[in-house]
Amino acid sequence: MESNDRNGKMLKSIEQSPLYRICNPGSIAFFGASNSHAPMGSIIFSSLRAFGFQGALYPVHPTEAQVQGIRAYRSVLDLPQSADLAVLVLPTGIVEEILDQCGRKGIKHAVVVSGGFKEVGDRGAGLEKRIKETALKHGIRFLGPNCIGVANPYERLNTTPFPYEGPPGFIGMASQSGSFVTQMFQNLSKRGLGFSTAMSVGNEANVDIVDCMEYLGACPNTKVIALYIEGITRGKRFVETARAIVPHKPIVAFYVGGTETGKRAGLSHTGAMAGPDRLYDGMFQQSGVLRARSLQELFDFCWVLGALPTPGGNRVLIQTHSGGPGTAAADACGRAGLDLPPLSAETVEKLAPFLPHTASANNPVDFTFVKNPTQYILDIPKLLLEEKNADVLLLYLLVPSKLVTRALVQLGVPTERAPEKTGKVIERQTEAIAALLHTQKKPIVGYTLMSLEEPFSRSLIGRGLPLFDEAERAARAIMAMVQYSRFRDKLLAGMGDVRT
Amino acid sequence: MESNDRNGKMLKSIEQSPLYRICNPGSIAFFGASNSHAPMGSIIFSSLRAFGFQGALYPVHPTEAQVQGIRAYRSVLDLPQSADLAVLVLPTGIVEEILDQCGRKGIKHAVVVSGGFKEVGDRGAGLEKRIKETALKHGIRFLGPNCIGVANPYERLNTTPFPYEGPPGFIGMASQSGSFVTQMFQNLSKRGLGFSTAMSVGNEANVDIVDCMEYLGACPNTKVIALYIEGITRGKRFVETARAIVPHKPIVAFYVGGTETGKRAGLSHTGAMAGPDRLYDGMFQQSGVLRARSLQELFDFCWVLGALPTPGGNRVLIQTHSGGPGTAAADACGRAGLDLPPLSAETVEKLAPFLPHTASANNPVDFTFVKNPTQYILDIPKLLLEEKNADVLLLYLLVPSKLVTRALVQLGVPTERAPEKTGKVIERQTEAIAALLHTQKKPIVGYTLMSLEEPFSRSLIGRGLPLFDEAERAARAIMAMVQYSRFRDKLLAGMGDVRT
Repeated sequence: MESNDRNGKMLKSIEQSPLYRICNPGSIAFFGASNSHAPMGSIIFSSLRAFGFQGALYPVHPTEAQVQGIRAYRSVLDLPQSADLAVLVLPTGIVEEILDQCGRKGIKHAVVVSGGFKEVGDRGAGLEKRIKETALKHGIRFLGPNCIGVANPYERLNTTPFPYEGPPGFIGMASQSGSFVTQMFQNLSKRGLGFSTAMSVGNEANVDIVDCMEYLGACPNTKVIALYIEGITRGKRFVETARAIVPHKPIVAFYVGGTETGKRAGLSHTGAMAGPDRLYDGMFQQSGVLRARSLQELFDFCWVLGALPTPGGNRVLIQTHSGGPGTAAADACGRAGLDLPPLSAETVEKLAPFLPHTASANNPVDFTFVKNPTQYILDIPKLLLEEKNADVLLLYLLVPSKLVTRALVQLGVPTERAPEKTGKVIERQTEAIAALLHTQKKPIVGYTLMSLEEPFSRSLIGRGLPLFDEAERAARAIMAMVQYSRFRDKLLAGMGDVRT
Repeated sequence: MESNDRNGKMLKSIEQSPLYRICNPGSIAFFGASNSHAPMGSIIFSSLRAFGFQGALYPVHPTEAQVQGIRAYRSVLDLPQSADLAVLVLPTGIVEEILDQCGRKGIKHAVVVSGGFKEVGDRGAGLEKRIKETALKHGIRFLGPNCIGVANPYERLNTTPFPYEGPPGFIGMASQSGSFVTQMFQNLSKRGLGFSTAMSVGNEANVDIVDCMEYLGACPNTKVIALYIEGITRGKRFVETARAIVPHKPIVAFYVGGTETGKRAGLSHTGAMAGPDRLYDGMFQQSGVLRARSLQELFDFCWVLGALPTPGGNRVLIQTHSGGPGTAAADACGRAGLDLPPLSAETVEKLAPFLPHTASANNPVDFTFVKNPTQYILDIPKLLLEEKNADVLLLYLLVPSKLVTRALVQLGVPTERAPEKTGKVIERQTEAIAALLHTQKKPIVGYTLMSLEEPFSRSLIGRGLPLFDEAERAARAIMAMVQYSRFRDKLLAGMGDVRT
């Protein structure tokens, strides 16, 4: 696969990519949907329609005149015109024939969802070789087989089985698992995140994860690139491409082939050839790619990298009203490789009027309780963000709506009006934080023990604050930003070795 | 603190513990509540009352005749009788005097919430020394200062500022942070968990975390003990006590003093003297105590240890319908120290009728999609639990209610009836898993990419299945069970060295 015909480490324009028409088709020929609702083809066709894709849709079905209410064609050859993209959700055995027909109709791009190829062993590998040859013959570029294709919410395109949830976002994903695209929609939307474009690459018979990375590097909607990797075939090209992208856009990878158990599982999943952890660690380091150690961490890193300014260094100030969360955060920061500088004399002086006698003007700055919520959420963070010895503010935030309601009732608000008033109090507080977020040049990260689905959390997240349910996740995400800025600076300075 | 007057490594009965009356008081004298709602004393008094504590409550207030509608006393000396427990939420400077009055009234147990002692430096340390002497003079045993006391939901006792949420549970907690008691109520209840009894030990001037551990070891409502540690003073006693408890009950510790940053923060939080990680690692290993690396992980471990049978070994079977989640789980298991045995010939044969041709009868067993939900959730797990080569079943579970609703509507269920019917479908599926959980002797652990607050997740959790939002957390929790069984077996066999 290490081909010489695609030169240049970074695309001049996104339209040059084989992925361009796959992710931005004007029309789609769809194979495998029917009027029975159970088959995967029908489910995917439902998703595509439910999302409101604006281009022409041509379902192809051997017997039905209509599929899910849309005019169907007996054969792709019967289509009134060619289509930009073919989506194939067909039994393994007929994929080659249909791909050949698509080629004859002039279709140049495809998503092959069907499985049963290289991932099931020798017989499947033979079939896969044949579809590759057929594609080559017609000049077709395709994703898959054994993938679920793409979601590009900016184009209301979704060839995956789950409905897309939430708004379009800034995370571009290239994944060797379709589930980690489609099953993340809800998960990401709960963090106020979304995909710019997400691709499931499956067996990578024709287009591979490096092609996807190249596309996402040039994609204007993508601020950060997420990779789920079971094994990389074009290692050299991966490194070159990543090194061209990282100066402009961070890349985070979750790699699962580094253990014997992960390697075996990946082989039977996508036929991927994995390598030992240290090999991949080396490749990622050399490329300036950040490595996440779990799927949630992959998106934790993407969150802060896409939402926040890059910090000037690794010095964190922790603000808390609770000692345990402060101490745990201090420990987590230390473990993650972050420094906790002491406060400067100026800051200590400015803080003095806000500190109760039980409080601590160290770092963590622990107020021991919240005397005045507006001070805690607005005045103090503002003051701490001015600390010249620190680069990042890590803020403990916990305002359960039940407590706010209880306090309001005790202050004389009638019980029936308390919930509405609670909502308003919470909104005012989160507005204060949002104002800081959008006017300050240093990153602010939040952590909490509340559910991220509590109204206060949801409001903070909705206003763009990365909020984590434990200090460890927050600390590691901050360190990812620091690490990214180190990689970026070394690459921009033209350094060959960016390892740390 | 290493005293000789308390012999025996394990309590004969829970009543012997100085914590017994603190956690099970018949009556409480309360200092620091008023008719103003803002002070911490008033907030705690509200929590205590809101939870419905059944014993007598005697608020003491220098000027008010009633506090929050309850008859108040000018002085503790005016109480109609002595009380089992005094709760002090008072300015630092008057704590000693009030404690002395309590002693004169015959009160033998106290919770000192007030801060401003050892944790703020030399002056505070002097005050702390004096309250210790006063307590000694009267034979008072007390928690704190600088703590929030206890929650014992079985007795409807809650001396913390947050309302207790959810049912009583099986986690006994002793914590050097009050926040990690009170702020966990909501967090735990969302996982269907709760505290049996939770104690915040503060500065440990009189009763320490080892006393609490001893109490929880003997507490019949406690199935697993959680410790949050910033520093242990009585190291030898800690080891002896833990070694006596672990054969009968697992102990999990989250220690944050092992980094320089964590150590410094702990010192200013509770005045704890922390030690390097390797020292504590050694102490935990020697004691048979499991170490968690974050607060969430502390409760992850408690969840599986309290809810599931102990596994016979470290061999895990993974069942999935999605390749990526399966591969990531395989990698996570490998990293956690778990084995993934191949399926036996018998199991492969029994599985055959259930497997589509795209599926993989390896481990992970990957069905690639769910042909029949009842099979996936009932028949197949049952069959896999019979696999003689495996000790634990790790099950990928993902049924978003939106998808169920969409499928029902497509099958002809009227849109307005679909949500109710969705609920029923989900309940039937989770019932099937619950039936397995309660009849099988091997542990079953679930993982998902759905929100744990989705109806399907909530129903599973409500029926007792430990469910994690990523494979890594699930794998590490399983390894904690395996590790516990190793510790336990070595201690039961009388082995001096239980390190692994």
